[in-house]
Amino acid sequence: MKIDPITQASATAVEPPLVARAGTIVPIVLCGGAGSRLWPASREAFPKQFISLLGEESMFQQTLCRIRHPLFGAPVIVTHEDFRFLVLSQMKQVQMAGEILLEPARRDSAPAIAAAVSFIQQRDPQALVLVLASDHLIGDLPAFRSAVEIAAAAAIQGQLVTFGMVPDKPATGYGYIRPQPGDAGARKVLSFVEKPDAPTAARYLDEGYLWNSGMFLFRADSFMAELGRHEPAIASAATAAVAHAKEDIGFHRLDAEHFASAPRKSIDYAVMERTELASVVPASFGWSDVGSWSSVWEASARDEAGNAGGDNVEFVDSRNCYVQSSGPLTVLVGMEDAVVVVENDAVMVTKRERAEEVKGAFERLKADGHPAVVSSRRVDRPWGYYQTLDLAARFQVKRIVVDPGQKLSLQSHYHRAEHWVVVRGTAEVTRDAETILVHENESIYLPIGCVHRMANPGKILLEIIEVQSGSYLGEDDIVRYEDVYRRV
Amino acid sequence: MKIDPITQASATAVEPPLVARAGTIVPIVLCGGAGSRLWPASREAFPKQFISLLGEESMFQQTLCRIRHPLFGAPVIVTHEDFRFLVLSQMKQVQMAGEILLEPARRDSAPAIAAAVSFIQQRDPQALVLVLASDHLIGDLPAFRSAVEIAAAAAIQGQLVTFGMVPDKPATGYGYIRPQPGDAGARKVLSFVEKPDAPTAARYLDEGYLWNSGMFLFRADSFMAELGRHEPAIASAATAAVAHAKEDIGFHRLDAEHFASAPRKSIDYAVMERTELASVVPASFGWSDVGSWSSVWEASARDEAGNAGGDNVEFVDSRNCYVQSSGPLTVLVGMEDAVVVVENDAVMVTKRERAEEVKGAFERLKADGHPAVVSSRRVDRPWGYYQTLDLAARFQVKRIVVDPGQKLSLQSHYHRAEHWVVVRGTAEVTRDAETILVHENESIYLPIGCVHRMANPGKILLEIIEVQSGSYLGEDDIVRYEDVYRRV
Repeated sequence: MKIDPITQASATAVEPPLVARAGTIVPIVLCGGAGSRLWPASREAFPKQFISLLGEESMFQQTLCRIRHPLFGAPVIVTHEDFRFLVLSQMKQVQMAGEILLEPARRDSAPAIAAAVSFIQQRDPQALVLVLASDHLIGDLPAFRSAVEIAAAAAIQGQLVTFGMVPDKPATGYGYIRPQPGDAGARKVLSFVEKPDAPTAARYLDEGYLWNSGMFLFRADSFMAELGRHEPAIASAATAAVAHAKEDIGFHRLDAEHFASAPRKSIDYAVMERTELASVVPASFGWSDVGSWSSVWEASARDEAGNAGGDNVEFVDSRNCYVQSSGPLTVLVGMEDAVVVVENDAVMVTKRERAEEVKGAFERLKADGHPAVVSSRRVDRPWGYYQTLDLAARFQVKRIVVDPGQKLSLQSHYHRAEHWVVVRGTAEVTRDAETILVHENESIYLPIGCVHRMANPGKILLEIIEVQSGSYLGEDDIVRYEDVYRRV
Repeated sequence: MKIDPITQASATAVEPPLVARAGTIVPIVLCGGAGSRLWPASREAFPKQFISLLGEESMFQQTLCRIRHPLFGAPVIVTHEDFRFLVLSQMKQVQMAGEILLEPARRDSAPAIAAAVSFIQQRDPQALVLVLASDHLIGDLPAFRSAVEIAAAAAIQGQLVTFGMVPDKPATGYGYIRPQPGDAGARKVLSFVEKPDAPTAARYLDEGYLWNSGMFLFRADSFMAELGRHEPAIASAATAAVAHAKEDIGFHRLDAEHFASAPRKSIDYAVMERTELASVVPASFGWSDVGSWSSVWEASARDEAGNAGGDNVEFVDSRNCYVQSSGPLTVLVGMEDAVVVVENDAVMVTKRERAEEVKGAFERLKADGHPAVVSSRRVDRPWGYYQTLDLAARFQVKRIVVDPGQKLSLQSHYHRAEHWVVVRGTAEVTRDAETILVHENESIYLPIGCVHRMANPGKILLEIIEVQSGSYLGEDDIVRYEDVYRRV
């Protein structure tokens, strides 16, 4: 079904539903971000929304759980194609279903939202749509839901509603919204203003400005009409990218050529700052955009000395520090206001008030081509994950974990032989013409050039220690013959 | 040969040699320290003198190289039995020969020195003895040697000579020596004084006091006579421990019972502060006792911003920081005066001026029984070393490196089976009745209960990836049948 944004514009004249029906608010979760400010926990290949940073679940999963409520229909996730298996696996873990749209390239938020709205319109042209970031925290769920209900009432009337967070301090890290004075309910937006300096932020606080949270609620048709009015190129590119999308084992791949023709603009710049229909719902629901390690510290449970850290952290005469370690025991002696993040392959130390500068350090490392910006040693795959345990000139040791029922591609290597030792579960190994069951505590040898595949036919995780040896051990020494995840 | 310290006392009356003969100064290297202030680089099982902290060689090796000069005879190393293979292997690496005395227990410096002196007296009752710590730095070798020659001249006359470092700042971390005023040569010690507070240290600096470096030069007989006078129990215990020492594949094991009867006292307290014969040679040879991370920073090459760190360290707008990482990329953003030490299993962050407090943190971790105080993941063995790569409930992965010509003990396990994959070199594996050569890229399986042994018959290092699986994976599940290092 193809939707013409211009035609949709006239649909606003049709009598709208007056209250939000249960389940009719369709969440769009934007899940394409990179999160360089939270390096080294956040990596290009594993950005912050997928990390268990605050709580057991990732922020993406917390976002999904937030909309597990009768108010909301199944969400539409917009993500980059590199993250598709990560998104799917994290959705599965929290047992949430939804549609997954894959962006062939990053074009900022307006094209991503437009594509998702257009996709939703295929089923319901006037659907109420709630746009959420996948990497924000919300502490007070009932307050969040009542803000959504207030916003929905205005959206039904055709307003494009934003959520304005009532500031509790003169933050300089957010854009602000100046609302029309008023009491309860949605208010007209008088203006959007950029991140202020400290004195301006203090004035904004006094004058009742609100933080721009980057969440929106609107009717699909109202949004597409306004987008068509102000950025027709984005509206038509996104709509066409949806109309020509390809299905791929449950993913919706937006058409690359059409999508690439959308100008790269944020939703604020493309629509919200230009439309006459912008409203804002002032709200306080414990929101944080977790934009730096300093905000992670703020959002964390802290001890009496103001420190936050896990079980493997010791604070000795230290105050107001944040420590996160993925494993190694981490000890701070006589530190104040420090942020220490420890991963297996990278360690970052800064002060809370300098935490914004981690982004710059990340960019510098990226320019130097340092591998630690891209991924950590654990690499997620559609069938499970692997982790490099040891890497030397002529050998590499990996721990490979295969989910029940999954199988790796049928493959061969030109330059390396592999030993697989099964340490948990049972592997079904294809080696040239043979198929062999390898049980716990058994091993198998795969000589250079043999065509092989590993599968987990069982009901429990399969864990394998792989010892590779050869003159070249790069991931690109792989010839794929067959792959259930279509990576051939 | 048994030496009576009392008899030795009368030997001072015998005409002494008037100049130090080449090769007659016998160095004693004290190598039993724990170095908790340099945690986590320094561990109980691998203390700071064995670490490559400043330069490629460890401080123990640097100490050995310092005495590779015609002035000195072969050294006598006094160490704890736990470190014997470490000492031997590090001596081999720098191709230094010497005698190794093993202390059955730590009794502070006076008994250790007394035992070494008594040992030396077996060959030469009047030998000139130079006592050195194994964990000090000396920057200016020619200056060190000329100080030794000045000290030797006084020692030949029967003086117990210390080396007093000319202070360049009012340090509060050292004890001080008040010398008799004078010019060149050894001067009488008027008094030894404890570590001062800051104003006292400033006064000491003005009044020409010297730092007590903990190095000594004396004639064996003079020392034993003074020790016999002031601490006869130490003298007789140490002498008896040497007389009853056992030979053990090249090590000299001091007799445990006799050694344990020596009162636990430092050489300063036992002899130097009480003898009338104490002299001091004022000297400036770039000495540091590397007593904390702050002194490591001081002794390191620093960039223009005052930072010191290796190849895998990035400083972003940071100043006067010290970073040491055993592997992970370590990035400091906006830090000043920070010390960051990164090991695979532990990370420590402090400020330079708080670096002394690392010792307290170490003691706290030790009281909590934390394994990271004892050893890092690399464990040295007489045949080479191993490193744990991965450890889970039912399996463990190790990288085992065996030196050429070495062999592990013949052993079996009750609870675990092992897979060995050879990734470098050739292994000669004994498995029950078989002896099998396993080449690079081959593997072998050792079922639970089999009696096995690994040897490296070759000329290059043997590297093996060992995958253990079983219900219990502790190091103590081992039955040793035969061991060239006598650990059965």
